[in-house]
Amino acid sequence: MDADAAERRAVVRYDVSGFRETEDWIAVERPLTILLDGAEFATMVCTPSDLEELTYGFLASEGIIRRADEVASLAIDPVSGFARVQLRNPRAAGKDAVSKRFIGSCCGKSRQFYFVNDARAARTSTSPVKLTVRQCVDRLRELEDASEAFRRTGGLHNAALCSPDRLLLARSDIGRHNALDKLYGRCLLENLPTRDAIVAFSGRLSSEVVLKVAKLGAGVVLSKSAPTTLAVELARDLGITAVGFVRGASLNVYSHPHRIRE
Amino acid sequence: MDADAAERRAVVRYDVSGFRETEDWIAVERPLTILLDGAEFATMVCTPSDLEELTYGFLASEGIIRRADEVASLAIDPVSGFARVQLRNPRAAGKDAVSKRFIGSCCGKSRQFYFVNDARAARTSTSPVKLTVRQCVDRLRELEDASEAFRRTGGLHNAALCSPDRLLLARSDIGRHNALDKLYGRCLLENLPTRDAIVAFSGRLSSEVVLKVAKLGAGVVLSKSAPTTLAVELARDLGITAVGFVRGASLNVYSHPHRIRE
Repeated sequence: MDADAAERRAVVRYDVSGFRETEDWIAVERPLTILLDGAEFATMVCTPSDLEELTYGFLASEGIIRRADEVASLAIDPVSGFARVQLRNPRAAGKDAVSKRFIGSCCGKSRQFYFVNDARAARTSTSPVKLTVRQCVDRLRELEDASEAFRRTGGLHNAALCSPDRLLLARSDIGRHNALDKLYGRCLLENLPTRDAIVAFSGRLSSEVVLKVAKLGAGVVLSKSAPTTLAVELARDLGITAVGFVRGASLNVYSHPHRIRE
Repeated sequence: MDADAAERRAVVRYDVSGFRETEDWIAVERPLTILLDGAEFATMVCTPSDLEELTYGFLASEGIIRRADEVASLAIDPVSGFARVQLRNPRAAGKDAVSKRFIGSCCGKSRQFYFVNDARAARTSTSPVKLTVRQCVDRLRELEDASEAFRRTGGLHNAALCSPDRLLLARSDIGRHNALDKLYGRCLLENLPTRDAIVAFSGRLSSEVVLKVAKLGAGVVLSKSAPTTLAVELARDLGITAVGFVRGASLNVYSHPHRIRE
């Protein structure tokens, strides 16, 4: 287990034998503030592991970088929780646009976008990847098995990049989106191809999760949980196959079902 | 069921009988942009119900207002997803401070705060409220029963304000924090006392959830799920009793256990 992901803490436990003081593993949560060219860009809370990946993935997801080599230097202080990033070409369009609401459809993409940076960074999938129901079920089971910290603490979200046949890369975080950003960051750092990748995710399929999958460039997202209407609309617009409620040997396909076979 | 919370959508279902096209209830997700005195303040995605409560609760949680009468006017357009807010006294300290990282402990509060607005808005609980293990278990069971939309879609978070003996007010949202902000907004609009209130919550106990509970002014938070280390530290600092893993007749108390009796 990643030593940074969980710590033992005192807890008062009540069960059939009554109250007693004991210890339990608890998921570690810490703030990380990204300083971009010296200015405070964002503060998030996260599991303090893979912070370099998280920083790269977050910046790419926010549309600040497209490739890892756009970062000139990155220094992370895990104790104070600061990541200092210098870009090779400091952006004119900085933080201001990032959280602005996207109105209209001027760039030809969906009207469903609600942030300017999403419209800029999300990619439409044309992946020919296909997988069977059995492969969907197996990849999600492997995702759960992959995180010892999750099993110990119950407090982490897991995300993995998969081929139809196996998990390629798995990351955990107390934040849903951070787990996906860590995957994205690793892909950028290693220049991994993602067009035919499948994302297995432990949480619900919200619009933000589908947008992260689109930014990462994958064509399929698998989850044991429910989707939202906006997530389904975005997945349809972005060419992504969204599969939810993968439980036992049943599942629901909400968009682009041609990629799922019996 | 709240008509705004779920919609029927086409889905390709796979189960023992193979693939078939059917319909299913899916949790509705829509953007809401808050315009504060004419300027874009924040955009969130939410379940489009109780939007007035959500707006009041969000502004209070962000430290912009402390009472409902600080809002001079509020106009919500649910179709375009805009909430136009005019404050009675437009703030000098506006959005800039809200997402700034809080460094140090100058205001006498915990070093664990990581946002300026949290340090400003979170309250320390001195509530004398006590409840039994059985009451913890019963209130969380009632929370699950309260949301028909949750049962239909599997895609909503639920939060309720409780006395030891019953649920007083329950709200749902696809966003964890929105469900708590809707509760907070209703409390402000009705001037409900919250010092002896208990919050029952369907999700994990992250630092943000504990901070919302502190801002709302409650003394106890109950969850079936796991906490994080930062959530436990904040609950200790803020005088809040954090109870997790409430399952069957067992539970874990992570802070201020004097409020929980056999």
